[in-house]
Amino acid sequence: MSATSPTLSVFTRDAALAAKAAGAGLRDAPGETRAAILGDLAAALERADVREAVFAANARDMERAKADAAQGTLAPALINRLGIDAKKMVGLSDGLRQLAAMIDLVGGVTLRRELDDGLILERVTCPLGLIGVVFEARPDALIQIAGIALRTGNAVLLKGGREAEDSNRALTDVIHDVLRKHGIDVRVAVLLEDRAAVAAVLEQDGIVDLIVARGSTEFVHHVQKSTRIPVMAHAAGICHLYLHRAADPAMAAALAVDSKMTYPAACNALETLLWDEGAETALDASVKALAAAGVELRGCAETRARHPSLVPATDADWDTEYGAAILAIRRVRGIDQALAHIATHGSRHTESIVTSDDAAAQRFLSAVDAAGVYHNASTRFSDGYRYGLGAEVGISTDKLHARGPVGADGLLTYRWLLHGSGQRTADYGAGGKRFKHRDLPT
Amino acid sequence: MSATSPTLSVFTRDAALAAKAAGAGLRDAPGETRAAILGDLAAALERADVREAVFAANARDMERAKADAAQGTLAPALINRLGIDAKKMVGLSDGLRQLAAMIDLVGGVTLRRELDDGLILERVTCPLGLIGVVFEARPDALIQIAGIALRTGNAVLLKGGREAEDSNRALTDVIHDVLRKHGIDVRVAVLLEDRAAVAAVLEQDGIVDLIVARGSTEFVHHVQKSTRIPVMAHAAGICHLYLHRAADPAMAAALAVDSKMTYPAACNALETLLWDEGAETALDASVKALAAAGVELRGCAETRARHPSLVPATDADWDTEYGAAILAIRRVRGIDQALAHIATHGSRHTESIVTSDDAAAQRFLSAVDAAGVYHNASTRFSDGYRYGLGAEVGISTDKLHARGPVGADGLLTYRWLLHGSGQRTADYGAGGKRFKHRDLPT
Repeated sequence: MSATSPTLSVFTRDAALAAKAAGAGLRDAPGETRAAILGDLAAALERADVREAVFAANARDMERAKADAAQGTLAPALINRLGIDAKKMVGLSDGLRQLAAMIDLVGGVTLRRELDDGLILERVTCPLGLIGVVFEARPDALIQIAGIALRTGNAVLLKGGREAEDSNRALTDVIHDVLRKHGIDVRVAVLLEDRAAVAAVLEQDGIVDLIVARGSTEFVHHVQKSTRIPVMAHAAGICHLYLHRAADPAMAAALAVDSKMTYPAACNALETLLWDEGAETALDASVKALAAAGVELRGCAETRARHPSLVPATDADWDTEYGAAILAIRRVRGIDQALAHIATHGSRHTESIVTSDDAAAQRFLSAVDAAGVYHNASTRFSDGYRYGLGAEVGISTDKLHARGPVGADGLLTYRWLLHGSGQRTADYGAGGKRFKHRDLPT
Repeated sequence: MSATSPTLSVFTRDAALAAKAAGAGLRDAPGETRAAILGDLAAALERADVREAVFAANARDMERAKADAAQGTLAPALINRLGIDAKKMVGLSDGLRQLAAMIDLVGGVTLRRELDDGLILERVTCPLGLIGVVFEARPDALIQIAGIALRTGNAVLLKGGREAEDSNRALTDVIHDVLRKHGIDVRVAVLLEDRAAVAAVLEQDGIVDLIVARGSTEFVHHVQKSTRIPVMAHAAGICHLYLHRAADPAMAAALAVDSKMTYPAACNALETLLWDEGAETALDASVKALAAAGVELRGCAETRARHPSLVPATDADWDTEYGAAILAIRRVRGIDQALAHIATHGSRHTESIVTSDDAAAQRFLSAVDAAGVYHNASTRFSDGYRYGLGAEVGISTDKLHARGPVGADGLLTYRWLLHGSGQRTADYGAGGKRFKHRDLPT
């Protein structure tokens, strides 16, 4: 691996322009080249020397982080998210290979229309251009997001947290080695290293086309408030599992535990369980399984009437993303009240109904306004890898542009190309020529 | 026409929630109903009694506006945009019929994927929900935008300017009559009438899903700064026509005049003409035709060396959207300098090259980062009606979500629906079940 990868400790507008210009080379390269870069990156992360270098760098970061946590200058929760182990490396390589195998999305003609003789309109996909990625901890996010960006012909400015400095540098070195091998200007993936760089990236409106923010809710809010560039944020999730009266008790219990406990800190983890009159057996089975899994359960008065050992829930519980092994449970009177609770307290992330009643399921799937709406499945399926997107930029709870797990699609836009032969608009309209508007095959 | 259409002079969060709830009825109605509403609205606008009522209301607005302009309390430019004549009414009906004839886009399955046995993922289009439309003058924009919104199952809050109050009320009455006929709650299209209402709409984040802003640049900027809701704005356009050395002189002159003069106030009108060494004849023909059309021409030193009668251009001219019969002209040295000028001074709206050299055209079409990139065509083609979109919400120079003329697509989002049979995520991954990720026909 090269020790001379360009990293920037002072970030300037010129550096952003240079990255964007380098991006044009990647965008104009054949799709096979972008796919090969991803495949080679996957292979590189499996090489013994690369793994050793990455693990060594990560170990230095972990050691520093533990010392900082002991001194109280770093949140202990970050340590878990900082670590890179063999399993994570395998996951990264798998994701990159999925991305490499995808159909190339750059330059796709999504509409072709004959407006008139010799006047052909095309809508053609293209990269957004330059993506600013600002993230805390999780150095694996660097590979995931850079992988999606490079696959779609985008340049990236990468600004990770100080706590992951060594890991981020080691991973960027791997990316640069692969880019060099393919003759692509390494400035398409720039790692920024100084403290001021986050602010510097956020100020580059007009050059940086999108900010991808990954980190704590506070960090994401800070980013959103500090820039005029559009921000795609991996947002908070207050997800519900609704036990309809026709819920199968064993399935309810299994889905409640999976949704809550496979990764309680994840945004797609369950925060509130709703149960209906008639779903008492499903509730009982779920309470038993959740308690056995070590979940602190907080219940409304009607839930506690049945399960007095539960902690009393307050109104604040319905609006809380615990990010921990805590779950709120509330009794509702029928599907309308369940839908109303979700509309009021949900964060439009992922909502799931458990029922064997198809009409109720259909009603729920139609009515809930959220990125993911599920029937008889764990909320934790809301994930780019599980959806088959290869990897994800994040999970969006916004409604515009991209919703739910955001894969390669989310880093693309399109341009309208018009191929004419001298046509003037003045010749069309009242009394003049008429448009044909005939769609042609793409 | 009914005299009892609900309009709101005090706008509350409850009113917004009521509009959104009414929207669910429109969203869940069959696509044929939404199409029939648009068709009936087109027919209504052709009825003698409706036209008389609308023209009478518009005449009252015009009379008031002229008096206000005479007293200096209203910009005279607004008067032209305020008027509704028979031609505009025909155009509105034509656009509504195009929208009615379009394939219904609500509930479209754009992806269907088998994640595993009995675990089917679908990506399904749906309305954004509730659209806040804030606009100045141009009462015809009310029909256009409401038409697109209703066709796509969205509810709308309409807040026009005081100067168009009578026209907006008359047009809303027509919409409400048609909605009633189809049994749709008229609260899906609410006209807001008091002065404070713009601010009240902009504060409804979490309920209003998108703001559509139409009006002057100052108005749009004010809206963008005043809300946390995403804003789709009909943005400014600094469009270029680049006369390459292989430009046909007659075509160059015709396109320059059409791009500049068919509607100088439009965002897709030409602001700067670039010309190359070797394009002198094309320049001369263009200057002659533009001057004959009454355009004030401002030139760089090299342009004035050839055409000394031109006003000297200053640096500010390259960044100015005149919105009037004024054009800046600059000499460039080859396509690279043309591309650099456009990248620096263009607003990513619409850019056009005039050339008979296919390689140069291809280079230009590949390299320019703008919503519309044209070869041998007038910049004025950048328009939803001309593109065959039926009508337009606006023309976006943003890159996310929708770009260029925004039609029905721009008011849609999607949800991911997952149909399971009790699957848990814990069963997948290392050593466990593997995802199939098999795409099924949609």
